[in-house]
Amino acid sequence: MNTFGRLFRLSTWGESHGPAVGCVLDGCPSGLELTEADVQCELDRRKPGQSDVTTARGEPDSVEFLSGVFEDRTLGTPVSMLVHNRDADSSKYRDFIYKPRPGHADLAWRMKYGHVDWRGGGRSSARETVGRVAGGAVAKKILQKHRVQVVAYTKQIGRVKSGEVLDSSMKGVADLIESNPVRALDVDVARSMVDEVKVARKKGDSVGGVVECVALNVPPGLGEPVFGKLTADLAAGVASIPGVKGVEFGLGFDSASKPGSEVNDEFTYAGGVVRTTSNNSGGIQGGITNGMPVVLRAAFKPTSSIKKRQHTVDLNLKKNSYIQVEGRHDPCIVPRAVPVVEAMVNLVLADHMIISGNIPRKL
Amino acid sequence: MNTFGRLFRLSTWGESHGPAVGCVLDGCPSGLELTEADVQCELDRRKPGQSDVTTARGEPDSVEFLSGVFEDRTLGTPVSMLVHNRDADSSKYRDFIYKPRPGHADLAWRMKYGHVDWRGGGRSSARETVGRVAGGAVAKKILQKHRVQVVAYTKQIGRVKSGEVLDSSMKGVADLIESNPVRALDVDVARSMVDEVKVARKKGDSVGGVVECVALNVPPGLGEPVFGKLTADLAAGVASIPGVKGVEFGLGFDSASKPGSEVNDEFTYAGGVVRTTSNNSGGIQGGITNGMPVVLRAAFKPTSSIKKRQHTVDLNLKKNSYIQVEGRHDPCIVPRAVPVVEAMVNLVLADHMIISGNIPRKL
Amino acid sequence: MNTFGRLFRLSTWGESHGPAVGCVLDGCPSGLELTEADVQCELDRRKPGQSDVTTARGEPDSVEFLSGVFEDRTLGTPVSMLVHNRDADSSKYRDFIYKPRPGHADLAWRMKYGHVDWRGGGRSSARETVGRVAGGAVAKKILQKHRVQVVAYTKQIGRVKSGEVLDSSMKGVADLIESNPVRALDVDVARSMVDEVKVARKKGDSVGGVVECVALNVPPGLGEPVFGKLTADLAAGVASIPGVKGVEFGLGFDSASKPGSEVNDEFTYAGGVVRTTSNNSGGIQGGITNGMPVVLRAAFKPTSSIKKRQHTVDLNLKKNSYIQVEGRHDPCIVPRAVPVVEAMVNLVLADHMIISGNIPRKL
Amino acid sequence: MNTFGRLFRLSTWGESHGPAVGCVLDGCPSGLELTEADVQCELDRRKPGQSDVTTARGEPDSVEFLSGVFEDRTLGTPVSMLVHNRDADSSKYRDFIYKPRPGHADLAWRMKYGHVDWRGGGRSSARETVGRVAGGAVAKKILQKHRVQVVAYTKQIGRVKSGEVLDSSMKGVADLIESNPVRALDVDVARSMVDEVKVARKKGDSVGGVVECVALNVPPGLGEPVFGKLTADLAAGVASIPGVKGVEFGLGFDSASKPGSEVNDEFTYAGGVVRTTSNNSGGIQGGITNGMPVVLRAAFKPTSSIKKRQHTVDLNLKKNSYIQVEGRHDPCIVPRAVPVVEAMVNLVLADHMIISGNIPRKL
Repeated sequence: MNTFGRLFRLSTWGESHGPAVGCVLDGCPSGLELTEADVQCELDRRKPGQSDVTTARGEPDSVEFLSGVFEDRTLGTPVSMLVHNRDADSSKYRDFIYKPRPGHADLAWRMKYGHVDWRGGGRSSARETVGRVAGGAVAKKILQKHRVQVVAYTKQIGRVKSGEVLDSSMKGVADLIESNPVRALDVDVARSMVDEVKVARKKGDSVGGVVECVALNVPPGLGEPVFGKLTADLAAGVASIPGVKGVEFGLGFDSASKPGSEVNDEFTYAGGVVRTTSNNSGGIQGGITNGMPVVLRAAFKPTSSIKKRQHTVDLNLKKNSYIQVEGRHDPCIVPRAVPVVEAMVNLVLADHMIISGNIPRKL
Repeated sequence: MNTFGRLFRLSTWGESHGPAVGCVLDGCPSGLELTEADVQCELDRRKPGQSDVTTARGEPDSVEFLSGVFEDRTLGTPVSMLVHNRDADSSKYRDFIYKPRPGHADLAWRMKYGHVDWRGGGRSSARETVGRVAGGAVAKKILQKHRVQVVAYTKQIGRVKSGEVLDSSMKGVADLIESNPVRALDVDVARSMVDEVKVARKKGDSVGGVVECVALNVPPGLGEPVFGKLTADLAAGVASIPGVKGVEFGLGFDSASKPGSEVNDEFTYAGGVVRTTSNNSGGIQGGITNGMPVVLRAAFKPTSSIKKRQHTVDLNLKKNSYIQVEGRHDPCIVPRAVPVVEAMVNLVLADHMIISGNIPRKL
Repeated sequence: MNTFGRLFRLSTWGESHGPAVGCVLDGCPSGLELTEADVQCELDRRKPGQSDVTTARGEPDSVEFLSGVFEDRTLGTPVSMLVHNRDADSSKYRDFIYKPRPGHADLAWRMKYGHVDWRGGGRSSARETVGRVAGGAVAKKILQKHRVQVVAYTKQIGRVKSGEVLDSSMKGVADLIESNPVRALDVDVARSMVDEVKVARKKGDSVGGVVECVALNVPPGLGEPVFGKLTADLAAGVASIPGVKGVEFGLGFDSASKPGSEVNDEFTYAGGVVRTTSNNSGGIQGGITNGMPVVLRAAFKPTSSIKKRQHTVDLNLKKNSYIQVEGRHDPCIVPRAVPVVEAMVNLVLADHMIISGNIPRKL
Repeated sequence: MNTFGRLFRLSTWGESHGPAVGCVLDGCPSGLELTEADVQCELDRRKPGQSDVTTARGEPDSVEFLSGVFEDRTLGTPVSMLVHNRDADSSKYRDFIYKPRPGHADLAWRMKYGHVDWRGGGRSSARETVGRVAGGAVAKKILQKHRVQVVAYTKQIGRVKSGEVLDSSMKGVADLIESNPVRALDVDVARSMVDEVKVARKKGDSVGGVVECVALNVPPGLGEPVFGKLTADLAAGVASIPGVKGVEFGLGFDSASKPGSEVNDEFTYAGGVVRTTSNNSGGIQGGITNGMPVVLRAAFKPTSSIKKRQHTVDLNLKKNSYIQVEGRHDPCIVPRAVPVVEAMVNLVLADHMIISGNIPRKL
């Protein structure tokens, strides 16, 4: 259950306040050029302390390869990657042992497992996503060899929404996203988003948002009917990210209120190739890619850890109580969730390209 | 890839215009009382021709048990169920062999598989969901023994939206839903929804909608971190339903724009048991159930088959062309999708209750 | 658990005395020429009543395709195949409801599932292998397109053992096997084997034996370290056949007593290609094929149903008792097990060739 | 493919001459008392340099827990375990880059993956089994809580065979096995076995052998028909161990030559419980345990690395050549394979006990 994928399989492990977090990536084709730097640059995009709108936990998040790579090429064997936890601080968590934090998995976890890791968020912490980003970085490297490019960005933070993507080629977009602390496509909107986050933090509160992800040059024919549809696998991958409360493709929920004549993507020949004149389906029809860009969005709830006083219970005293969640928390998880969404999409696409035979087992 | 689930596993098979559709349900506990009537009543809710807002294809959809049940009890062996296709009519489809229908999987399927089933929608037809509903009926029977009740209903059709559920006990709701042709909770709203469908059909167009699903009495502790989260499995199951373009849990996409202090569900003691005072999380925290009702919504796009003239291509002549999709199609798939959403949720919950040990292998 | 394979997956269903048995084959490449006759000819090799050394149960075992094949080619969708049980006779089994038959799974099954199918062997009957042979026939068709040929034959029945295969090209071997009722390679030995079976039957007893299986032209590189080794998958597939008590590869158990210098297969260039000068490894090294013939053997225990009086218990009266198992049983299962072993090997090889990319998803 | 199990899942990683080897154990119940010492004692039984009949590679094989255990109890999250490679010496392997070693996977691996780890055996080295033994130690701990005891021992080395087990209670057997360097049940036979190994080594040769494994107090009802039979899962697990060329259960290959009346295990009441008067089935009937001891044997081929001169090819010069495999190798792998066989059996039984509901997810 801590493993994702069919032939290209990622298993992640690690608690937020244990000695380390990491992952094992199985089914990676052999012969892929891969160095720790390829993975490190993605981890750097996810790591805490990047800007003044993220948590202050100071983790270098340096990755070590333990297996699967030799002479800077993959062997076809499992790639084991490890990241030490350097700045774990459990002092703030002692108070919460018997007081489940609203919005968190504390109580659900306790009911399921009994034995509780009071040192911190444990396995339900978003720190778990380190392994996903590490694995996703390898998937990205594979996909790049086949020109598939996956880019995610912040579409909404709190009440501030970004407009549409202008240029379908996505040229320069990757840099643009990294040029602002919230990873938005529009620098002006980014400023408003930063304000939205700062206002919330000032109030001891938090905000959520929406991440949009686009995959370009995805070959047609990916996705397996009927339960292995690409939508199903993407939905599972993205919905498994901490904080995600919704996933949609193409027009998504908006397609519910529109007539078929406006939603159907019509076909036309363009340069000898059949294309659709719109992309309301988000590049996936009947669960199978049609060669158009794959487009999805994920809704993130606001960070659960807030300094505002909230009602909770004291499981020890068995009575109602209050809680104020101090500690180093992101007031908005969305900017750091962008590379995590990318990672999951990269993982799904690499897996399906291997399943469909688009990527050989030996590169 | 035509199999869904981990220990309680449903494999479906069959094309819309082949001799039959069906499924094999593996991992069903032994000793469950089960008759064909238990399955038939759910298939009747899904079958075509129920009302004047659904397709006129006349399928009795009678289920036959081929294995796994003896003396009206399950054996613990695979339950093979078969439904003959009685009213398949391929005459309308001959025109579409080289003309992919906009919104359909025709072209994506052709690019993936090469060999095309021109008789009809084939495997990508919603007729495939017969097997899901049959399997889901067995899951429902198992869950009922543990008081878990799953109810779905139409929340939105086109631009007509229904209000909130009034009574959290859901008493009488199952009957209410079946009392109107669109399976809405509110009879007045249902009338407007029917109008919305009829207006669209009159124009040769179609409409989409939203199905909401609530599961009551779900025990806490279901869901497996991190990739087997209940949200991930539900998202995969629901996103695999034909026509679904989005899935959300609890507050869903609305949680993106609200502050944490309004989204977090606070805890309180109620009758000695810890409950949350709101249910914005939709009963799932960190991917694990917390004992509150599980709530999700699925967005369905409008039916792709419309009589309005649309642009398409002629793959034989290799030039642009037009198409008008005649035939017997639902102008809105949502009312018949309600039991399909229920089926997928029942399947996921039964699977997780078996995995978690809440349901024994021998009843 | 009734599903076998990774990408090329067979699910079987059905009880020996229920209405039918069958299977669903998922992951079959599209575009494969396939007719019911391709499957029927393999089922005919497995069916009862072929000769005077097999059971007299008279089953035509006619296969029907229910899905996945259109215009005599596979669609890439699940191939559902059904075989009706025509000659089920439960009259002999009533006596055994409370008397577990020695050697059979009756008691183990009862302890596991509680609810018992007293009509006959049920799911633990070798009749379950109909689905395997049907699925294996499709795998065989796929492999033939890639020149891979799988041939099994009877190596031993009771105390009668056959010599070595003379001609490594296996030319004419398939016909030779079918020319005698025990499917041995040597017609003279076959006669002794028939006698061995008849003598046992006359005594109201039964005999076991060994089936050897050779796969020619298997491409190198099949098999996935470390738990997906070809040996592991073949062992699982073959050990799952009813009555199998042992599986070995190449030299097998004999390699335990020989020195490395006699067991190691040395390498040499032959026509520009590296070959081994012996094949003690059975074509698999480190779990991966090396291009040499794959060789395995399966040990079958004697049929459990014998007319001789045996000790058993009466679970109803809770006391010791006796049993004589009347009915129509094979005195030796080995001749009919030959196509079942072939089927499992064909299934494993087809699956691994798809996983390794040797066989495309679209033919 | 580097993952084993269904709900209790072990993923292993690591190359013999890389920085480390290890594993991730997923699906371990929460609340299990577990320390590194529990795992270390099993690794010590597998580690090199134990006696003068094993390799001289000096590895402390110290295990580190990286996740999944807190306050000496499992959390229900993945248990990540790491063992550093301390004494890797690649100097001897440089010669073999283009000269595949007979009996080894060198050539098969090269054909499959292209990119070759010339530093040593890599992933196909038996060093990979460190992860299996670590995972198996946790399985053993779980099984002990349910009185299930798994003991393996050396049954044969080269031409020296051990007699039958005398005492079915297996009391003191675990200590007895550890009292001699070959892990035999009979101290006198052990001496002959040691001689057999030493004679072979002196000649620059190697020997194989047979490991027998017995599991006591296994509850009835484990094993899932039809492809998840306990025999199938055990066969897969054991056949995946490096060097295994055969697996058999109970009477195994000997049952092929005996009549049914001698092979069938008859039933009798013993103290109110139904038992069999013999155990030729090895405790498994129709793939399901019947409460009798589970008995299996694995045949190991002689170590492939021998100092004797052997024919091989030079892939660089593309001509026939010779090889003498120097380095630190076990002349017989069997004594160190004993804990590996135990590990695989422990893993399979723990998995099936969780699947069958005998072991809860929360201890």
